[in-house]
Amino acid sequence: MTTTATTLKGQPLDKAVLESMLRRRMFYTPSFEIYGGVSGLYDYGPPGCALQANIIDIWRKHFVLEEDMLEVDCTVLTPHEVLKTSGHVDKFADWMCKDPKNGEILRADHFVEDVLESRLKGDKEARGEKIEEKEVDPKKKKKKTKGQEAIKLGDAVVKEYEEILAQIDNYNGEQLGELIIKYDLKNPATGVLPTPPVAFNLMFQTSIGPSSNLAGYLRPETAQGQFLNFAKLLEFNTGNMPFASASIGKSYRNEISPRAGLLRVREFLMAEIEHYVDPEGHKKHSRFHEVEDIELVLLDRHTQLSGQTSVKKMTVGKAVKDGLVDNETLGYFLARIHLFLEKLGIDQSKIRFRQHMANEMAHYACDCWDAELLTSTGWVECVGCADRSAYDLTVHAKKTGAPLIVRERLDEPKIIEEWETVIEKKKFGPFYKKDGKTIEAAILATSQEQRETLAKEMEQNGKVVIDVPGVSEGKVEVSKDLLALEFRKRTENIREYTPNVIEPSFGIGRILYSLIEHNYWTRASDGGDEARGVLSFPPAVAPTKVLIVTLSTNQEFGPFTRKLSQKLRAVGISSRVDDSSASIGKRYSRNDELGTPFGITIDFQTVKDGSVTLRERDSTHQVRADEDKIIAAIQSLVNGAKSWRDIESELPVFEAQELEVR
Amino acid sequence: MTTTATTLKGQPLDKAVLESMLRRRMFYTPSFEIYGGVSGLYDYGPPGCALQANIIDIWRKHFVLEEDMLEVDCTVLTPHEVLKTSGHVDKFADWMCKDPKNGEILRADHFVEDVLESRLKGDKEARGEKIEEKEVDPKKKKKKTKGQEAIKLGDAVVKEYEEILAQIDNYNGEQLGELIIKYDLKNPATGVLPTPPVAFNLMFQTSIGPSSNLAGYLRPETAQGQFLNFAKLLEFNTGNMPFASASIGKSYRNEISPRAGLLRVREFLMAEIEHYVDPEGHKKHSRFHEVEDIELVLLDRHTQLSGQTSVKKMTVGKAVKDGLVDNETLGYFLARIHLFLEKLGIDQSKIRFRQHMANEMAHYACDCWDAELLTSTGWVECVGCADRSAYDLTVHAKKTGAPLIVRERLDEPKIIEEWETVIEKKKFGPFYKKDGKTIEAAILATSQEQRETLAKEMEQNGKVVIDVPGVSEGKVEVSKDLLALEFRKRTENIREYTPNVIEPSFGIGRILYSLIEHNYWTRASDGGDEARGVLSFPPAVAPTKVLIVTLSTNQEFGPFTRKLSQKLRAVGISSRVDDSSASIGKRYSRNDELGTPFGITIDFQTVKDGSVTLRERDSTHQVRADEDKIIAAIQSLVNGAKSWRDIESELPVFEAQELEVR
Repeated sequence: MTTTATTLKGQPLDKAVLESMLRRRMFYTPSFEIYGGVSGLYDYGPPGCALQANIIDIWRKHFVLEEDMLEVDCTVLTPHEVLKTSGHVDKFADWMCKDPKNGEILRADHFVEDVLESRLKGDKEARGEKIEEKEVDPKKKKKKTKGQEAIKLGDAVVKEYEEILAQIDNYNGEQLGELIIKYDLKNPATGVLPTPPVAFNLMFQTSIGPSSNLAGYLRPETAQGQFLNFAKLLEFNTGNMPFASASIGKSYRNEISPRAGLLRVREFLMAEIEHYVDPEGHKKHSRFHEVEDIELVLLDRHTQLSGQTSVKKMTVGKAVKDGLVDNETLGYFLARIHLFLEKLGIDQSKIRFRQHMANEMAHYACDCWDAELLTSTGWVECVGCADRSAYDLTVHAKKTGAPLIVRERLDEPKIIEEWETVIEKKKFGPFYKKDGKTIEAAILATSQEQRETLAKEMEQNGKVVIDVPGVSEGKVEVSKDLLALEFRKRTENIREYTPNVIEPSFGIGRILYSLIEHNYWTRASDGGDEARGVLSFPPAVAPTKVLIVTLSTNQEFGPFTRKLSQKLRAVGISSRVDDSSASIGKRYSRNDELGTPFGITIDFQTVKDGSVTLRERDSTHQVRADEDKIIAAIQSLVNGAKSWRDIESELPVFEAQELEVR
Repeated sequence: MTTTATTLKGQPLDKAVLESMLRRRMFYTPSFEIYGGVSGLYDYGPPGCALQANIIDIWRKHFVLEEDMLEVDCTVLTPHEVLKTSGHVDKFADWMCKDPKNGEILRADHFVEDVLESRLKGDKEARGEKIEEKEVDPKKKKKKTKGQEAIKLGDAVVKEYEEILAQIDNYNGEQLGELIIKYDLKNPATGVLPTPPVAFNLMFQTSIGPSSNLAGYLRPETAQGQFLNFAKLLEFNTGNMPFASASIGKSYRNEISPRAGLLRVREFLMAEIEHYVDPEGHKKHSRFHEVEDIELVLLDRHTQLSGQTSVKKMTVGKAVKDGLVDNETLGYFLARIHLFLEKLGIDQSKIRFRQHMANEMAHYACDCWDAELLTSTGWVECVGCADRSAYDLTVHAKKTGAPLIVRERLDEPKIIEEWETVIEKKKFGPFYKKDGKTIEAAILATSQEQRETLAKEMEQNGKVVIDVPGVSEGKVEVSKDLLALEFRKRTENIREYTPNVIEPSFGIGRILYSLIEHNYWTRASDGGDEARGVLSFPPAVAPTKVLIVTLSTNQEFGPFTRKLSQKLRAVGISSRVDDSSASIGKRYSRNDELGTPFGITIDFQTVKDGSVTLRERDSTHQVRADEDKIIAAIQSLVNGAKSWRDIESELPVFEAQELEVR
């Protein structure tokens, strides 16, 4: 996972400089900072908030509107019983160790990863190898800088460590504990071994109502609310399958030690889709042909288990055909996720889809691929795409008795011929007394083959012997006046089934942070002494679309500024006015840091003829035309109908006013 | 508060019929219903979710974009210390009683209200008066239907009860307890008096982090996160005042007994504005002239305290001039709130602004007006507009030391002449030892008048006597070598002040529910045997804008349906297709219940010439034109550029196809 983080233009990415810029421009900020902050909680300031709203807007159009998904908004507060049934109360946990000396609480997998990576680094130093300038995850920095000496390891040990790291997500708590013992992984801060890992449930608990007797949690995912509404949603969809529900909302995970900025937080915005599909017929998708030629970068389960991280690039059509991706519906959504990330402005060379290994998978999933984005912290899971099979609907239906199923009228009635067991209830119960129910269950549990054999036995002997564990030493005799075995024919007009669920699940904060890194670069200032930050967001994603600046603080410009911003507002384009006394160059530069794609300057020419200049952020080129033409140009740029090149060829280029930072 | 609820067309509103329709169309539904539900928690289904998104979209345009407010998104999880400082830990509570016989938990003010209203009703019956058909609040229904007999009350008692009810929100717990005793208010369910009211804090508690030692709450309002970011937001706004921040997000209140559907829930979406204003100069607002002629319906504090509920209708300009509304900024927002509600489609005759009484006000407010909407449950507080003065910024600054202030460069430096105290630190400390700090504080706390007197005393006696409670029997002698008192002149260039906050705060769920009631009506079906529901939302608010129906299930129509919905999607208009085999009348009728304003029918003529018909929900009139003209018409209807009357005059009316429910 060693990476050299780069900017949009391939420059080395200086994370400290970027973070200082993001803080200065209030993209996000630690929550409750004046109270000292709470780790894992962040607030979005105005640009971050607008960026988030635009990502959500594009998500809604790309997924929900495009496929007529049924959007729902369910509560975050969830009673205990629901999450007990879903398995989260018992299984939604991370492994936690404690340092017995200083009481520090450690997340076991991160701890093992940190110490091994640190040893590998020490080995490289000892071997005199140049260590790649890697942007270190801030959550790890503290430990790494402490006490790791340059000690050479044996070649076999290096290979062992690397193989462990390639599958670090695949170990359970016991195995992590074994690794700690086997490799003597001491906490560098104290020099002692941490305690064996124990499970720590990640849900925030509370109680609902005044009498405090209804335990509840803050939901760890939006999915459960969607599943519980399945029957109503199916009815709303007039019974048609397949269909999807979708939800955008906050979820909560009480992370053990969140230390990676927006990438690991305790409260986060999720956008989740639950796509319900008939499990029969290998989960085909009617629109798969639209995406089958899209190329994806895949890192499959087998590669990781063999200790490698090499990827395969192939079309999603081939990946499904080869069985690398299980089925069309899963493949369809992987491709749609890829297209969504591309639309946002995620760097295409920094996406891969990684398959979960068996132990890594959530308790409800039977297959899962993560869309991972490359950032200065390494590869970060930003979208999960899980096949949850029929798990959730089945457990909730079983617990509540609600029919979370699809009833499908068969085009052709299905004729079924099979062995049936007919129990003579009136005699059977009194005869076997308290064992009656157990024996009946054993009879009902017999297979078609067994029943055929039993039928012959009954015909020959007038009785059969059934295996019933726990009753009369395991064997029970049943005579023909109590049981009949018959081969019967029946006709079915309705098929009932529990649909399977394919779940694309988006962590909006992680996508937002990766998007910032992928679109960040610096350009030299005029003097060349100072690099200035630029965030080259696509216009549709940018927090604000237009900055309006006046050449000076002259009062004359006021009415033009107001009219222009009103006109932009009327066509739904967000703008901000900067009529401060800072130089135009400085104001544009401030604005480049906010990622605003266009700038309009109002000058004395504007007062004379109503013309204004339009500046494009990335090229810093300008054109000049009358106000309405410029507004029309911006509209077409924001909705994607035209590119800046088109505008430059249509409107007169403006070069007079070279006040500009290039 | 006795009201007869009516529909948009003035018909009596049958709440049971409306609720059954809303449930059938999945506007909202009890959360976790298959698990028996949890009171006060609701999920929004697809139409409710879209309606909510549209309300939020209009809110953002009307407030945030219109006035360049700084939108932020802060966390729901909030540490104890923040809410302790803000006063919520100590004061954010309702009064709760318990029925000692059956253990039922009662909200004290609602209990008193219920019993008194029930007695008044019994009195009317006894007097043989016709009781107005009032839609009863479901939370009250249970009690009311039990055991209240028709007993005549004395005229004086009736008047007393009515006066209590007019100011029911003004009683504290002790006073509610006194009312219960004085009027012998027994719980009708058991016939016993409830226990005296105790305060029940409405915040949901949890703990943050793995070691469970950081207590936290789910925020009860979005405001605190905004206040804590004040200094950063002011800087983001390049120091300019006034400005506003805004936030849209979930908040939580652990209601004692939530039983009124969407009107009293435990988890709800809020949209809040914190407008920061200089307290000097009586809080003028630069855009007040734009709204001063808007008429508001006002129910002021004095009227309520005198036991009345009569309203005054006047322009906001006059209300501010007369001092009924304290200042321009508060008046400006009341008018803007009114315009927002009007834009949504709230019935103008069902809005009033009610001023809070002193005891009713939240602990942080110095004045507050609620926009109340009339529903079948009576007048419901949907928007609060509070003047929080400098309360919050002051307490947080005091607690944390953070400078939550504005520093304003004065146009003209201010010359200040005043008495200053100069302490000879080197001698003062050693002389008074442990009492030094206390004595110093007492000296610094002296007023200008006191200092003038002390200076004379010092000049005469060479020493002064200072009052210092707790030190040397309250009097301390200070000699002139330890303290000087001087009259000095100094020049100030900067003025520092803590801004005041005007806070418009919107309960989106309550607005959404009221909007549904205000836009609901029924029309007779063809046969006249059955009334069919219609929700006449304005196009911009409607969950879906267009229903596309095909004349029959003929396969030929498929490509036209797909092309049409793609084209609509491209111009950002949401549509749904209904190509089921139900009759067109039935499909449109289903759609009227969903509030979809427009319907497009694809028929055999479409296959021939590409023309389609467009139906308007409220009139059921239709026009026919080619597809692109119809799409352009819908665009202009949705963005408000044209009315249906305009479209009818522009495009050929279509009357051939009378399959329609009128």
